[in-house]
Amino acid sequence: MLFDNKPPNPVYATLDEMNSALAEIQDEIQRNGNDEDIISTDSEDLHRHGYSEWSSSNPETLPVAVAYPRSTEEVSIIARICHNYRIPIIPYSGGSSLEGNFSAPFGGVSIDFAYMDKIIKFNQEDMDIVVQPSIGWQDLNSQLLDMGSRLFFPIDPGPNAKIGGMVGTNCSGTNAVRYGTMKDWVLNLTIVLADGSVIKTRRRPRKSSAGYNLNGLFVGSEGTLGIVTEATLKLAVIPEEFSVAVVTFPSIRDAAAAAAGVMQNGIPVAAMEIMDEVQMKVVNLGGATAPRVWKEEPTLFFKFSGTKQSVAENVSRVQAITSANKGSNFEFAKDEREQKLLWSARKESLWSMLALRKGNEEVWSTDVAVPFSRLAELIEISKKEMDDLGLFASILGHIGDGNFHESIMYNRQDPAEREKVERCVKNMVRRAIDMDGTCTGEHAIGWGKKEALEWEVGPETLAVMRQLKHALDPRWIMNPGKIMDLA
Amino acid sequence: MLFDNKPPNPVYATLDEMNSALAEIQDEIQRNGNDEDIISTDSEDLHRHGYSEWSSSNPETLPVAVAYPRSTEEVSIIARICHNYRIPIIPYSGGSSLEGNFSAPFGGVSIDFAYMDKIIKFNQEDMDIVVQPSIGWQDLNSQLLDMGSRLFFPIDPGPNAKIGGMVGTNCSGTNAVRYGTMKDWVLNLTIVLADGSVIKTRRRPRKSSAGYNLNGLFVGSEGTLGIVTEATLKLAVIPEEFSVAVVTFPSIRDAAAAAAGVMQNGIPVAAMEIMDEVQMKVVNLGGATAPRVWKEEPTLFFKFSGTKQSVAENVSRVQAITSANKGSNFEFAKDEREQKLLWSARKESLWSMLALRKGNEEVWSTDVAVPFSRLAELIEISKKEMDDLGLFASILGHIGDGNFHESIMYNRQDPAEREKVERCVKNMVRRAIDMDGTCTGEHAIGWGKKEALEWEVGPETLAVMRQLKHALDPRWIMNPGKIMDLA
Repeated sequence: MLFDNKPPNPVYATLDEMNSALAEIQDEIQRNGNDEDIISTDSEDLHRHGYSEWSSSNPETLPVAVAYPRSTEEVSIIARICHNYRIPIIPYSGGSSLEGNFSAPFGGVSIDFAYMDKIIKFNQEDMDIVVQPSIGWQDLNSQLLDMGSRLFFPIDPGPNAKIGGMVGTNCSGTNAVRYGTMKDWVLNLTIVLADGSVIKTRRRPRKSSAGYNLNGLFVGSEGTLGIVTEATLKLAVIPEEFSVAVVTFPSIRDAAAAAAGVMQNGIPVAAMEIMDEVQMKVVNLGGATAPRVWKEEPTLFFKFSGTKQSVAENVSRVQAITSANKGSNFEFAKDEREQKLLWSARKESLWSMLALRKGNEEVWSTDVAVPFSRLAELIEISKKEMDDLGLFASILGHIGDGNFHESIMYNRQDPAEREKVERCVKNMVRRAIDMDGTCTGEHAIGWGKKEALEWEVGPETLAVMRQLKHALDPRWIMNPGKIMDLA
Repeated sequence: MLFDNKPPNPVYATLDEMNSALAEIQDEIQRNGNDEDIISTDSEDLHRHGYSEWSSSNPETLPVAVAYPRSTEEVSIIARICHNYRIPIIPYSGGSSLEGNFSAPFGGVSIDFAYMDKIIKFNQEDMDIVVQPSIGWQDLNSQLLDMGSRLFFPIDPGPNAKIGGMVGTNCSGTNAVRYGTMKDWVLNLTIVLADGSVIKTRRRPRKSSAGYNLNGLFVGSEGTLGIVTEATLKLAVIPEEFSVAVVTFPSIRDAAAAAAGVMQNGIPVAAMEIMDEVQMKVVNLGGATAPRVWKEEPTLFFKFSGTKQSVAENVSRVQAITSANKGSNFEFAKDEREQKLLWSARKESLWSMLALRKGNEEVWSTDVAVPFSRLAELIEISKKEMDDLGLFASILGHIGDGNFHESIMYNRQDPAEREKVERCVKNMVRRAIDMDGTCTGEHAIGWGKKEALEWEVGPETLAVMRQLKHALDPRWIMNPGKIMDLA
């Protein structure tokens, strides 16, 4: 094959070289007019940037330094000097990823965008907005509301996620069934390449067929091809009416059948989520919607949005389909407050589960996606295997996209228990791939799922990805150890 | 910059080597069990595969041979041998592209997928379908109807377009404002790479964040990175109700303002097209909807779809907005037949214009896209400059995407006239780029717009594209001379 010859393994800077590089960065940034000390080597800071309690796995190593740039130009300086010295650079924004995506397996410099969290330009008439990487999606939407705009950014991953990481992982969330994923909302990106040169993927047309779709390539590349320092995002119009409802089912299979019916009838629900009985229990325990208590049964959550009339129409069509699939107890959130609470109980389900941990417990949370027709079977088998572990474990997911999450609580001090959980998770991933699915619908590969990516696409396709990586980052300094390994 | 060092210009096979290669291809394919003569060197065949009367420009050269493979394996054999001999290979399906996209500026082998036009597998429950590159989108939809399916493929470029070319150009059409563009409907691709190795971009999940988004990169790459031999496409549910209406306006600016109002209110129209008074005249002259005659004024065409109730609601919201923007004569197609005729009159507008040609006349047809807020201004200035040419010329477009087409009829035997038209088109493209737009919203770069791509993205971004090209096609045999040049 064309790409059989792998390039040699990268050699990274020694600690001495690393220190020279950091001094050089600080010096050049000061000469450039910024007197702040942008480099931190504080040990807590390093830990926070190299380890994540959310992540299914973490390497043993930490970054050697954290840089806090204030501009694209400063990121460019950092990249250029790190390129000269062969030092890994790892972008960091919200830190809420789940597969060790921002970990530092080869040390290097974590670039934290904390100070680059602004709206640069709001083009209201064009329905787009230019932002920096560390603005959170929730914050972005609050600011849009505060400006009196009727527009919003519809991609809704975990509450703490920020635009930089959302681009990196091609994230999505509950709104994806209606609005698609991150890649569908990026008009252009400003990117610092491995050697510090800066490019813009394109201008601001809503649609384009001009040359390679660099947006499509960089979104989801987890900072391994370049570092995003600015993004122009499309915005959507806030619907005038919302409604939230839950329906329970005797089994996950019935719930999945109902969900398939909704999709196959083309009903434009705003969101459609599945939660098993354990996850419903977590919502009740969390108490967000107290005093109301939800039935602890397999449940579909629906969000409807549109005009008053279209919401009413979609609700009645969905009610008919769920009833025909053994759904019962179709209950609406009774007012806007309860809608928000209920939806945020769903959004914060991982938090709620983490809040239930005791002692040395951790939560292993992962996601897969498969074609609709296989979803019920996959969930059933996986849930059975998970239940057999005898641990506290739940399933929930974006069922309209064939995407679901498994969360298992286990004792990290117990290697046998960890191994058991790991096997269970890997079996689910294998099964999803065998069903023509993917090892991750929205969390991305990171450090934790590299092996699964090779199962999924095979060595030839992985070799093409590696070839692209090597073309743009010949020294392998951009977030190395993520998505794929060289050797 | 990282990519300053351009690789040396490619050296292609001599005519002798070319003949050896063709014999070798034919021989290996026969040994592989196919006794057909898959290679043609018939001069009419070569002309049809190297020259297009639709295209704004054509190189002087033609392919040296046309190959008609029957399978991915045969395409792989052709690519492998052409790679060994350094012979350009150029994919061909519908042949309806407009920028010389399938021309053969360096000779080589045109690969015509005429015999690879089948549905491979219809996954009804999963709402997806696996097809070969030479199935047309209209044929695909007819076959789905014949199978009794309620699903359809919603991307609607020119009537003759086929899936292979549609992937190549990341095409779209009138449905894009509702359904997006080609890249949004591709689940996976089977691709023959430069050296004949075969990869599949991914499996069939509706959504994935696993590794680089190769679908996003290959869609729109015009066969310059690899050749698509199979595609799995998402399908949508056919709406239960349709309605088509036209509204006229005193000026293009008023029509554009009304269209902006529809977008900014988030009304889910199924399509929204603008046609100037000249294009309306072309529709009347074409006679498709005779005896009905449409007003020859700036006009918005709307398509509505959904449930009966939601169509009625959207129609009344759009009527309110168009009235508030000086729209008048809101007229509906009176039945399904007239809806279809009217919509096909719009779809076949370029055909209708070509049908009006006399003697040596040709039509220069091109497209650009800009952010909404600049569209009215761009159309006004461009239309004025076009009218000043004193030629038969029209404007029409997908206004909801900020995308429009300019078509100018001119005498190709008159170099001064051609030059004048070319200057006018280039001015429009320049203006679109200056307004933060793109040199092509849906026709792609091909042979004709390489200079414009460099204006649009700049030399650094183009260098990144060139680097990606070189990484996957080091001998530059994949549709060379398209999108970018090496030197």
